[in-house]
Amino acid sequence: MLFERIESKGLAHYSYLIGNGGQAVVIDPRRDCDIYVEKALRSGHRITHILETHRNEDYLIGSVALASRTGATIWHADAQWDYRYGQPVEDGQTWDVGPLQLEAIHSPGHTPGMMSYLLRDRGGAPWMVFTGDSLFAGDVGRMDLLGEDRMEEMAGQMYETLFEKLLPLGDEVIVCPAHGPGSVCGSAIADRAWTTIGLERKHNPELQFDDKETFVANVAQMLDRPPYFRRMEKGNLEGASLPNGLLAPQALSPTEFIRQAEKAMVLDTRMELGFGAAHVPTAISIWEDGVSSFAGWFLPYDRSILLVSDRDDPTQIMRYLVRLGYDDVAGYLGGGMLSWHKAGKISHSIGTITVHNLCDRLDAGEDFHILDVRSDEELETQGEIPTAQHIHVVDLPTRMDEVPRGRRTYIFCGSGVRSMMAASLLERQGYTDLFVILGGVAGWNSTACPIS
Amino acid sequence: MLFERIESKGLAHYSYLIGNGGQAVVIDPRRDCDIYVEKALRSGHRITHILETHRNEDYLIGSVALASRTGATIWHADAQWDYRYGQPVEDGQTWDVGPLQLEAIHSPGHTPGMMSYLLRDRGGAPWMVFTGDSLFAGDVGRMDLLGEDRMEEMAGQMYETLFEKLLPLGDEVIVCPAHGPGSVCGSAIADRAWTTIGLERKHNPELQFDDKETFVANVAQMLDRPPYFRRMEKGNLEGASLPNGLLAPQALSPTEFIRQAEKAMVLDTRMELGFGAAHVPTAISIWEDGVSSFAGWFLPYDRSILLVSDRDDPTQIMRYLVRLGYDDVAGYLGGGMLSWHKAGKISHSIGTITVHNLCDRLDAGEDFHILDVRSDEELETQGEIPTAQHIHVVDLPTRMDEVPRGRRTYIFCGSGVRSMMAASLLERQGYTDLFVILGGVAGWNSTACPIS
Amino acid sequence: MLFERIESKGLAHYSYLIGNGGQAVVIDPRRDCDIYVEKALRSGHRITHILETHRNEDYLIGSVALASRTGATIWHADAQWDYRYGQPVEDGQTWDVGPLQLEAIHSPGHTPGMMSYLLRDRGGAPWMVFTGDSLFAGDVGRMDLLGEDRMEEMAGQMYETLFEKLLPLGDEVIVCPAHGPGSVCGSAIADRAWTTIGLERKHNPELQFDDKETFVANVAQMLDRPPYFRRMEKGNLEGASLPNGLLAPQALSPTEFIRQAEKAMVLDTRMELGFGAAHVPTAISIWEDGVSSFAGWFLPYDRSILLVSDRDDPTQIMRYLVRLGYDDVAGYLGGGMLSWHKAGKISHSIGTITVHNLCDRLDAGEDFHILDVRSDEELETQGEIPTAQHIHVVDLPTRMDEVPRGRRTYIFCGSGVRSMMAASLLERQGYTDLFVILGGVAGWNSTACPIS
Amino acid sequence: MLFERIESKGLAHYSYLIGNGGQAVVIDPRRDCDIYVEKALRSGHRITHILETHRNEDYLIGSVALASRTGATIWHADAQWDYRYGQPVEDGQTWDVGPLQLEAIHSPGHTPGMMSYLLRDRGGAPWMVFTGDSLFAGDVGRMDLLGEDRMEEMAGQMYETLFEKLLPLGDEVIVCPAHGPGSVCGSAIADRAWTTIGLERKHNPELQFDDKETFVANVAQMLDRPPYFRRMEKGNLEGASLPNGLLAPQALSPTEFIRQAEKAMVLDTRMELGFGAAHVPTAISIWEDGVSSFAGWFLPYDRSILLVSDRDDPTQIMRYLVRLGYDDVAGYLGGGMLSWHKAGKISHSIGTITVHNLCDRLDAGEDFHILDVRSDEELETQGEIPTAQHIHVVDLPTRMDEVPRGRRTYIFCGSGVRSMMAASLLERQGYTDLFVILGGVAGWNSTACPIS
Repeated sequence: MLFERIESKGLAHYSYLIGNGGQAVVIDPRRDCDIYVEKALRSGHRITHILETHRNEDYLIGSVALASRTGATIWHADAQWDYRYGQPVEDGQTWDVGPLQLEAIHSPGHTPGMMSYLLRDRGGAPWMVFTGDSLFAGDVGRMDLLGEDRMEEMAGQMYETLFEKLLPLGDEVIVCPAHGPGSVCGSAIADRAWTTIGLERKHNPELQFDDKETFVANVAQMLDRPPYFRRMEKGNLEGASLPNGLLAPQALSPTEFIRQAEKAMVLDTRMELGFGAAHVPTAISIWEDGVSSFAGWFLPYDRSILLVSDRDDPTQIMRYLVRLGYDDVAGYLGGGMLSWHKAGKISHSIGTITVHNLCDRLDAGEDFHILDVRSDEELETQGEIPTAQHIHVVDLPTRMDEVPRGRRTYIFCGSGVRSMMAASLLERQGYTDLFVILGGVAGWNSTACPIS
Repeated sequence: MLFERIESKGLAHYSYLIGNGGQAVVIDPRRDCDIYVEKALRSGHRITHILETHRNEDYLIGSVALASRTGATIWHADAQWDYRYGQPVEDGQTWDVGPLQLEAIHSPGHTPGMMSYLLRDRGGAPWMVFTGDSLFAGDVGRMDLLGEDRMEEMAGQMYETLFEKLLPLGDEVIVCPAHGPGSVCGSAIADRAWTTIGLERKHNPELQFDDKETFVANVAQMLDRPPYFRRMEKGNLEGASLPNGLLAPQALSPTEFIRQAEKAMVLDTRMELGFGAAHVPTAISIWEDGVSSFAGWFLPYDRSILLVSDRDDPTQIMRYLVRLGYDDVAGYLGGGMLSWHKAGKISHSIGTITVHNLCDRLDAGEDFHILDVRSDEELETQGEIPTAQHIHVVDLPTRMDEVPRGRRTYIFCGSGVRSMMAASLLERQGYTDLFVILGGVAGWNSTACPIS
Repeated sequence: MLFERIESKGLAHYSYLIGNGGQAVVIDPRRDCDIYVEKALRSGHRITHILETHRNEDYLIGSVALASRTGATIWHADAQWDYRYGQPVEDGQTWDVGPLQLEAIHSPGHTPGMMSYLLRDRGGAPWMVFTGDSLFAGDVGRMDLLGEDRMEEMAGQMYETLFEKLLPLGDEVIVCPAHGPGSVCGSAIADRAWTTIGLERKHNPELQFDDKETFVANVAQMLDRPPYFRRMEKGNLEGASLPNGLLAPQALSPTEFIRQAEKAMVLDTRMELGFGAAHVPTAISIWEDGVSSFAGWFLPYDRSILLVSDRDDPTQIMRYLVRLGYDDVAGYLGGGMLSWHKAGKISHSIGTITVHNLCDRLDAGEDFHILDVRSDEELETQGEIPTAQHIHVVDLPTRMDEVPRGRRTYIFCGSGVRSMMAASLLERQGYTDLFVILGGVAGWNSTACPIS
Repeated sequence: MLFERIESKGLAHYSYLIGNGGQAVVIDPRRDCDIYVEKALRSGHRITHILETHRNEDYLIGSVALASRTGATIWHADAQWDYRYGQPVEDGQTWDVGPLQLEAIHSPGHTPGMMSYLLRDRGGAPWMVFTGDSLFAGDVGRMDLLGEDRMEEMAGQMYETLFEKLLPLGDEVIVCPAHGPGSVCGSAIADRAWTTIGLERKHNPELQFDDKETFVANVAQMLDRPPYFRRMEKGNLEGASLPNGLLAPQALSPTEFIRQAEKAMVLDTRMELGFGAAHVPTAISIWEDGVSSFAGWFLPYDRSILLVSDRDDPTQIMRYLVRLGYDDVAGYLGGGMLSWHKAGKISHSIGTITVHNLCDRLDAGEDFHILDVRSDEELETQGEIPTAQHIHVVDLPTRMDEVPRGRRTYIFCGSGVRSMMAASLLERQGYTDLFVILGGVAGWNSTACPIS
């Protein structure tokens, strides 16, 4: 039997490849779909079906790209919407995979037409369920995607999905969700690689409510909604083919980079230290592992992208971008920042400061402003910083006017990497005298100096 | 400086990537062109020009595929012909690559418009010359491609190219040809990885003639001409784009394989022993390393191809086929011959026999026929087999009627792998009682038993 | 959190790497232990503890090799035995891995001192249990390792381990055993990649007995016991360091291969077809994927090993051998069988025949003997072959005298690969006129011709 | 034929693997010798001889390590010295490699007993010569290794080697030296990948002298001599086995890193920008590609090494260190500087400044000191900086007292990476107010602001 969970880091997305008897099914493939084809090939399986659990909003699904390479049939959940490709799934529909069987279970709550897929031996008891964005390890899917008006309705459906359909499958059943920790599709997904119905029944905080009203009242909430979600939703209805596969970008000389940068966005994926020390003017800082989570908030879709990175080969960054629909990467800075400076090009810098030095400065009575760019949730669990202004980094583009100009500003996040992201956004709008706190709140809490 | 020779095994084809100062040029790229893009990317170079030495006839050139990934400009030699893409090179034209310079030298003989490219420091003495199919290590390009009528004319041009243009460049100049040993573009290319003008002047047997007449009289000869050459020539004028890159094939179950085999050719790339023991009926045997050299002789272009191989991943075989324009590989036998036999499918076998056993049989006075499928050249250098019928394996499709039916036939080649290829062709036409001699003439010569 | 299950194919062995907060633990490492070091390194964890579930008998454990690379502490289960390295685990002992905790649970039955390890958040409910060779997916560990005398006693302990210690952990707990399907440590491990206490409680046939007596009476049985088990047990008490890591073997010319073969065993890992067509005299056939399971039955430990394979690089085969303690691989046949035959060396062949041809021969009234080398268990589930002599392939060395000499013998197994293994053993003892049935019983059952 | 040139980056070292007919020879292997074994294995060759061109002084030769994996015989040049392993080569000695032959040519000048090896067909004319450290592309080997007293004598020998032994081999002969551009073994090796006797005769500036006196007078010069040379020379006489191969290092938490750093050296291989922004106090900065060239100048051999890097896997850095005899890498900072700051550990910073900002500061009349750490040779070819103090970075440890304390100091090199290396050395000795000029002299020269 072939069973593989493929993780797309950053998106915290899980897709699944299940095969038996020479035939295989992929659930929720990602767009750079070579991995499924290769794994099927090596194990002698033919991919015949692609099952989607729902119309995704946080990444472009690879169904069309994978179907064009394999001839597999695409099956849609959320069939109430208008797809340009594939076929609709019906509640209770089954697919045979050799001696195994997958069965669709209508599981609304995150989206109205979400499907879970139950895996069992044909005629036998269930042993796994692919829950998409309904049930996660330690969390449930967000219920706010149709807007605040319909959130209560969706939460009611989610309650029924969870308590009347999924939990009754049995404590022993293994739960295979579409996301792991870090996803924007659930607020607090636990850092557990594998889970079961019973582990969730006992440990998942969202499953500890006795009745529907309490569940709806306590669990449903409006979460941040990246601007790119609409784009993904649209792309997932139209089908996001990838006609040329992943194209390696071209190296650009500093001079050519500058020429192309007039019309493009510059994305710098180095860590906060290198970016702080020197970066191409106008560059946005998103450290490499953060690209999947944050590019959709800050990068427009109507401009090409130029990359600055530490890597010899930025192909991995291209993967992250392609999963979000950013297909037009015009090139990267050949030779990195070293070649930039050797060519005598102007770079900018943003200050970085350790918590110890900050302590000293604060003790010296310096005038300052503190900007905290962590999420609401982090503030709740990690504690607030007294005197700090709080704007979650993803809200910065729309709330930037609230940040005072002309004052020295110390920026905090959990570790420093998002602070640099925020600083790069502020710098693009003319802010100066910005300092990123290295180690962020984590570093601060490891030392003795209190902010008061 | 970036200087890479990329070898395409089987084709014995050399292409070159030369870069300096952030800019790079590729000479004679192959069609699966990812390697140039990756090497340029890792070293921070941008590929801006693609230079062709001539219109190739033995493989599809990757100029269009590479240009579509890089935006590079394509430059044609043989500009007298009608290309659908790219721009013509003129004799003496130069290209700058940072401080380096490439200069075109008209070098007719193999084709009328062949160009060599001389590499030097701008304003300095030459240090390398890319000779395409004019001068090889130990050989010169074949002069028979325009037909017997014009062979003498072409040989005269080749003489002038060699003696009046290339040799005068200086003994110290490094020679970078388009082919290494094993190519069908020269008859006797030496097994030397690197060579120079001076090494060729001294050692190349074709350069030991004093005057043009002797050269023409002795060097020009008609060589085997695979039927796919015409296809390659046509493709190389039209441009052989590869819109989807290399697609991994699908695994097929034995039953599905049989269904698809009705309209497809079955290509089995295992070694002679496995093929002899059991193979899918109608399969053609071409061992993996021989695909580049022999597929063009035996596989039609109007049918899809099904693969049988020992590999988990037949992608390498796909590369070989795509270089020859066989883009339609419909799938491969998942699980290999083991799954075939477990499914109870019928297989055929072809006898294999060691030279020792053959010896015993011959001594016993058995009646038999011997078929020798080596090339003329091999017969000359290795010696003939008395009493054997000689048909070069590539001529077998057109001369098969000459092979007697109804007699036990022992087949010889150099080692046994081409004998099995021949046997598979004969079997498809109804021949039976065929035996492949393991080790072939090499094995025979290592033992004491004489054929008399 | 770092959680990785590392599978050693062939052995069907699972080891586990669990990390959190920069610290990691490995459970039951394999001997070629580079994979743990690399995975820990890439995720920024330091391996500090190595936990053994029991003294293994089916492979050499990599604790000493891994400790020498990491400085980790080794903890032994089965501490009643006399180890030359490491420290004993006590029932109830705990280890912290960041916020996680592992707790030892005495789990006798397979061995007297086996330990399971329970994983939970410190102070929280369990979420995973590493069961070693006590509980598998669909099976339980064998209880016959201390001999028939003590089997009943061990089975009683196993009952208590399963019903009183493991099942009460809760249906929802994920079960991580030391073996997957194909292991010699359980007779019928299911082909399920992941399982839970509840899935086993419901589906595992060995857990369907109501009381201890019935369990003992029905579940305990003597299984085949490879001769190398003693060697592994001894090695696992002494510690199997691997001072030079994995050494790549040397290519040998046919002449040198013959010279070294005088004192060595020749192991040919090609598939049954290639081996049948031609092989080095005296070679034993074990197809590559069978090496882990069968080398221990047939290869002595006091002679070096020479390899024949289809691979360019036999390093993967070396891994399989090193895991079983075969460290002395003297070389491999450079250029494979093709170079052997080109050098005119003598090879042997063993007949292969499809079920269709066998059918025809049987119909023709040929005199013959049938040898069936499948296991008892396969006979039960797949059915017997009328008139066949049955000797499980692993018993062939000790029961070979029972096979009649001088008669044409057709050999059956499930698919053909073990039949060729059996044929190679028989051939070494002078048997002739042997035929391997391609596809074996699977092929036979796919066709219409009955053996009667 | 097997012919591979293996390049060890950083050392700019070339070794060679030559094989034919199943037998192979390695010339000047490096210490992490797995690459030769693997390449021989894949091409079916057995490594039987290891030839050294001379006793190396710039890296530890891998002869003993390679011989222990292959059983090959080691042959020493410089046999006048006292080796603890291997056998001495004699002038004119030959080795057969299938149909090829290697012949030793005594080639003193760099060392007294250096040997070149001439490759030809047995009985034929030469086609390649492996020149070790005598003749390079565009340079000749340094002649100062025996000290100033004997430099003239060695230069005389070098003249005879070059003009009486190597040049007469013929313009067409391909030259395979032991080093490419960037080596410390020649001062000005050209950036040409391949060369010939004739190209050197015409273009090599050191070969343009008419007689021995002029050659000696003009070519011989004392060059920088890293302190580790003595260590390498000693190691190369004793034999530098590598009993455990390359061991992957362990991740260390910040706290553990600090504990171990008390007795170890901290080597930070990030680029200048990240190091400047924040680094572990006491760390030495050597950017990754500079480790091979500079570690030997600054790292002691009697302390273990701790690594800080941007890489997930620092194994490549380990390779560089092992080639120089630094076998004791105690670990690396798990999670990099981000984990350091999150743990609230103190870091230091060193200022970086663009040439534009420097310009502005200088225009503002700031008091400052300029330190130029380029080599003498760079000053000659690139021009001096007026008012700058010049100390080559490798001389800084012995000449640090000359650098004034208490003044703002701007540090220049070619690009900035060596300036940061210098700054880290100064910082360790208590210097403050240091600024590294980004882009260095290259950047300066690309802009309009003159230093005056």
